[in-house]
Amino acid sequence: MENFEQIKAIVLERVKPKEEERKKVLSIASKVIEKAKEKAGEIGVKAEVEVEGSIAKDTWLSGDRDIDVFIKLPVELGVESIRSVGLEIAKAAAGEKWIESYAEHPYIEAKIDGYRVDIVPCLKVDKPDARLTAVDRTPFHTRYVLGKLDDKAKDEVRLLKRFMKGIDVYGAELKVGGFSGYLVELLIIHYGSFLNVVNEASSWKERHVIDVEKHYGDLRQVLMLFKEPLVVIDPVDRRRNVAAALTVEKYCELISACRAFLRKPSIKFFFPDEVKPMGFDDVINNLKRRDVSLLVLYSKCPKLPVEVLWGQLNKSLLGVKKLLEKEGFNVLSYRALSDEDNYAALVYELDRTELSKTLIHKGPPVHMSEDEDRFLSKYWEGENVAAGPWIEGRRWVVMLFRK
Amino acid sequence: MENFEQIKAIVLERVKPKEEERKKVLSIASKVIEKAKEKAGEIGVKAEVEVEGSIAKDTWLSGDRDIDVFIKLPVELGVESIRSVGLEIAKAAAGEKWIESYAEHPYIEAKIDGYRVDIVPCLKVDKPDARLTAVDRTPFHTRYVLGKLDDKAKDEVRLLKRFMKGIDVYGAELKVGGFSGYLVELLIIHYGSFLNVVNEASSWKERHVIDVEKHYGDLRQVLMLFKEPLVVIDPVDRRRNVAAALTVEKYCELISACRAFLRKPSIKFFFPDEVKPMGFDDVINNLKRRDVSLLVLYSKCPKLPVEVLWGQLNKSLLGVKKLLEKEGFNVLSYRALSDEDNYAALVYELDRTELSKTLIHKGPPVHMSEDEDRFLSKYWEGENVAAGPWIEGRRWVVMLFRK
Repeated sequence: MENFEQIKAIVLERVKPKEEERKKVLSIASKVIEKAKEKAGEIGVKAEVEVEGSIAKDTWLSGDRDIDVFIKLPVELGVESIRSVGLEIAKAAAGEKWIESYAEHPYIEAKIDGYRVDIVPCLKVDKPDARLTAVDRTPFHTRYVLGKLDDKAKDEVRLLKRFMKGIDVYGAELKVGGFSGYLVELLIIHYGSFLNVVNEASSWKERHVIDVEKHYGDLRQVLMLFKEPLVVIDPVDRRRNVAAALTVEKYCELISACRAFLRKPSIKFFFPDEVKPMGFDDVINNLKRRDVSLLVLYSKCPKLPVEVLWGQLNKSLLGVKKLLEKEGFNVLSYRALSDEDNYAALVYELDRTELSKTLIHKGPPVHMSEDEDRFLSKYWEGENVAAGPWIEGRRWVVMLFRK
Repeated sequence: MENFEQIKAIVLERVKPKEEERKKVLSIASKVIEKAKEKAGEIGVKAEVEVEGSIAKDTWLSGDRDIDVFIKLPVELGVESIRSVGLEIAKAAAGEKWIESYAEHPYIEAKIDGYRVDIVPCLKVDKPDARLTAVDRTPFHTRYVLGKLDDKAKDEVRLLKRFMKGIDVYGAELKVGGFSGYLVELLIIHYGSFLNVVNEASSWKERHVIDVEKHYGDLRQVLMLFKEPLVVIDPVDRRRNVAAALTVEKYCELISACRAFLRKPSIKFFFPDEVKPMGFDDVINNLKRRDVSLLVLYSKCPKLPVEVLWGQLNKSLLGVKKLLEKEGFNVLSYRALSDEDNYAALVYELDRTELSKTLIHKGPPVHMSEDEDRFLSKYWEGENVAAGPWIEGRRWVVMLFRK
């Protein structure tokens, strides 16, 4: 059993950025901001340019390589200005190595000194619920968090982020479906400390609601309004669930990991041992020992924004799984894999590769008389009929030879 | 296309008992009644003895070999008297060949001149809802039906009974799970004729309610009170659904057969061609062609009253099916078989006989922390664990080697 205070000290020593690293990050950000302002001045646009995200909130972890710079355009210019002057300013600020990308709307992804700098044009709105695009809300998040977190609390955020990275539930992108940085900050604001969050989360039930700013009087109402397992009402926009992107698996994994940590705290939750990929022979032997087969649908990675890519991969993953099960395979496990650049793959572990010659085909309920007509005229003594049709429960069924 | 009036004439010619057969049935019944009254007189019990069922209602079919004689004991004697003096009188009335049997309570099953005569002691109650046992209601059914059916309507009952026998949905016993004689009579009373019943039933939906005597104001209330697909409120006891024993399959089979009859009426619905059992070689070839396997659980028939026997067979049939599916077999079709005397068997058509070496075992939801503890301490690096455990949806799952 390791002592929590010792663990905390070790983790913070590793994740809290030192002066030198801070300076480097801020200098990169400053240069980008400067160039953006210069360009804005040139073309006569009154843009505010600021660092946002975990750098602005001082909740980033040492080693993080992401910097967010927002270019806030006057709202009078309208949404279209983001794509025109917004991107023009962003490109000028990006330096030499950049690509145009988009989430809900376009932004510039620049590579500067080993850092990834997202330069995001948006509109400067007065209130978060006047927002015209999803990112317009971000500056309000930054302001809210800065007003709530003192230096000690920022350390607690860093602890929780590192814990979530260690147990692989950190990151709201579709590839992970985990906790966003803002969500982690809200958990610390709400519960006060890393250890409190762990204690509370360990006893979350099927669903849990957190309404930090008490926007709703009745939490049952919140459960009706939102369908996700964890609902964290955005302090700056009561219509939004900050945990909307969290999958039920990642929600459950956090709960279970918190329990395990409380039972036996360890630095390994924060910095787990590296998992080395199995060699090819080991994979084959493992499959043989388990008497299972792998079905791998492998393709070149389509050139798509990552969120679109993972949205499609996750959807296809479940679609093909359903199809396999409908055909009679047992899918033991399944996963979508991609390096987001060269390849994309759907992998299914199946209990066998050959299906029986016949299968049961379920038809319509008997009381749907037109569907019954169609079904019976198709399968009454049809060529591929192995037996039936007959009635089971409320429905017609027929045994068919597989095509 | 055959003409319905012609079909009707042919069917009635075959199913309406002729004078000679009537005389024989009534003479058998009279002798039983006489002997019962004699015995009752001997032991000083004021019993009323009467024919009940389809003979009393004159809705029986030529060739039927069942006669019901009821011995109605004074209600003051109490339920216990059925087993004592009731059975004593019944045995005396039965002649030489009889066995004691029971449904909800005991009765005597006698064999007389090729007929099966059920001699049933019961209590004579004033009103059907004062009944103490299930059969006390029967005399009220007889009286109700006799008051509602004229001779033409009795022919319609016979037509509908024969139709239901032809399509194999007749008989409320558990082996069939179909329509009782009383239920058929109520359908004719309610709809007026065979053809009306066929017309109406052909468009019954998922559930249907018939409240002949309008005991309930609101049929939605009836749907809430009863859970069966067809609800026919007993005219003499509003708490009872006469169609309670009807399975959803037989309900649907009637609907579908009525539609088929309306599309193309034929005498074959009433008197289908005989189905000859397949020879052994044909069975084997058929299984091979379909690439399926038969699992037959065969045993001597336990010595049980038939309703108890079929209750157990049906329950076991579904229990074993569930077990097979849980283990990973696909059950293509399944049936319980018994001659109610020598053998009983459960038969399953399976798509294969061998299972994969591994299977997915579903564990508890993550939020049930005690169940999680038990699950993890059992399967975390257990000997028979092939992979995992991991979290899928809300639950822990683990891949196990089959025992």
